Amino acid sequence: MAHDPPIPAPATRGRFICLEGIEGVGKTSHLEAIVDHLQARGIPAVGTREPGGTALGEAVRGLLLSRDYPPMHPDTELLLMFAARAEHLRHHILPRLEAGTWVVSDRFTDATYAYQGGGREIPASRIAVLEEWVQGTWRPDLTLVLDTPVETGLARARRRGEGDRFEQETLAFFERVRGVYRDRARSDPARYALIDATGPLQAVRRAVLERVDALCDGEASA
Amino acid sequence: MAHDPPIPAPATRGRFICLEGIEGVGKTSHLEAIVDHLQARGIPAVGTREPGGTALGEAVRGLLLSRDYPPMHPDTELLLMFAARAEHLRHHILPRLEAGTWVVSDRFTDATYAYQGGGREIPASRIAVLEEWVQGTWRPDLTLVLDTPVETGLARARRRGEGDRFEQETLAFFERVRGVYRDRARSDPARYALIDATGPLQAVRRAVLERVDALCDGEASA
Repeated sequence: MAHDPPIPAPATRGRFICLEGIEGVGKTSHLEAIVDHLQARGIPAVGTREPGGTALGEAVRGLLLSRDYPPMHPDTELLLMFAARAEHLRHHILPRLEAGTWVVSDRFTDATYAYQGGGREIPASRIAVLEEWVQGTWRPDLTLVLDTPVETGLARARRRGEGDRFEQETLAFFERVRGVYRDRARSDPARYALIDATGPLQAVRRAVLERVDALCDGEASA
Repeated sequence: MAHDPPIPAPATRGRFICLEGIEGVGKTSHLEAIVDHLQARGIPAVGTREPGGTALGEAVRGLLLSRDYPPMHPDTELLLMFAARAEHLRHHILPRLEAGTWVVSDRFTDATYAYQGGGREIPASRIAVLEEWVQGTWRPDLTLVLDTPVETGLARARRRGEGDRFEQETLAFFERVRGVYRDRARSDPARYALIDATGPLQAVRRAVLERVDALCDGEASA
């Protein structure tokens, strides 16, 4: 399936780090800490999020999270996710990586496997077709999966007063989401870090930044 | 690439007719005539359009035609088109066909091959992946391609005062669009009718309704 310029990888200097996990697991706070930590090490870094990351992507995010429409078909949801992702990747992430900036994203394609695959039970093989269509063989350099029991995460999210369309799902839905995240993290320890996020914030942060440092130091010695 | 229930076809009673062609070719007026004609024959029929056809699809159409965003990547545009199409197909078109209603659409997947494939020069093989992902092997029963020279169509569209994002494209863009429409229509005369739309409206309408009648009569004798 040929595509115009294949997604550039070798010449890029920046690295792409993703934070994943169910609601209330602390992604946003750790994301800010990672960006600050990289900048303190002298590495240009920016944070972003999915779905979203561009003006158009944020508009698509609005459609995905809205409760103003009848429930959309799972195929529609998946195509909208990848539409926002294509825009994010081509017009935001890749230009920054090519310019030497590291990009840290609150969610990326693993979230699609977890939520649409695990949660909505769309076959992973169908997701893989769209992943390959949008990304080719390009993948994040490091994906940090923050893991807590579902009840813990949802209780935290509820305390924040969140209640978008995804947060109306059942406990069983989020158990399936968590299961996919854990399975994917364990299947490729080189690219993933599965981090227990139930403990005190500072302990979790230390584990997160250790993995980020390992990526930085690997770069430096490479 | 297995999918939950394969798109139902054999048990459907309604048929799906598409109108295609460049801007200003008269699709909207002929669409209304086809719906009226079917109803006059005692066949339940409704008109619809792409991108759109559902509340969510119309919102996606708004994003696609908007000039409020920086130009989107061609991949983004294509995924948004198929997102609106998946919703249209699953939540609007197929339920009506299954209920015995005929559906007549202003544009469908041939428009994607023409505009994103021909116009934006995305390889047809990439479009085919998404077509198969969304539709499986399901295709319209009849696609009427209304054909005029590009200048003629655009002059008519301009007289209507239209000027969305697509209508800002160059003449060469629309020549490629028209070329794909003509090639596709000629490649499968059983499913397509290539209709010269330069003549008087009534002559074009007669040609359109003759093809619709042939489909109805084929049904009746089948």
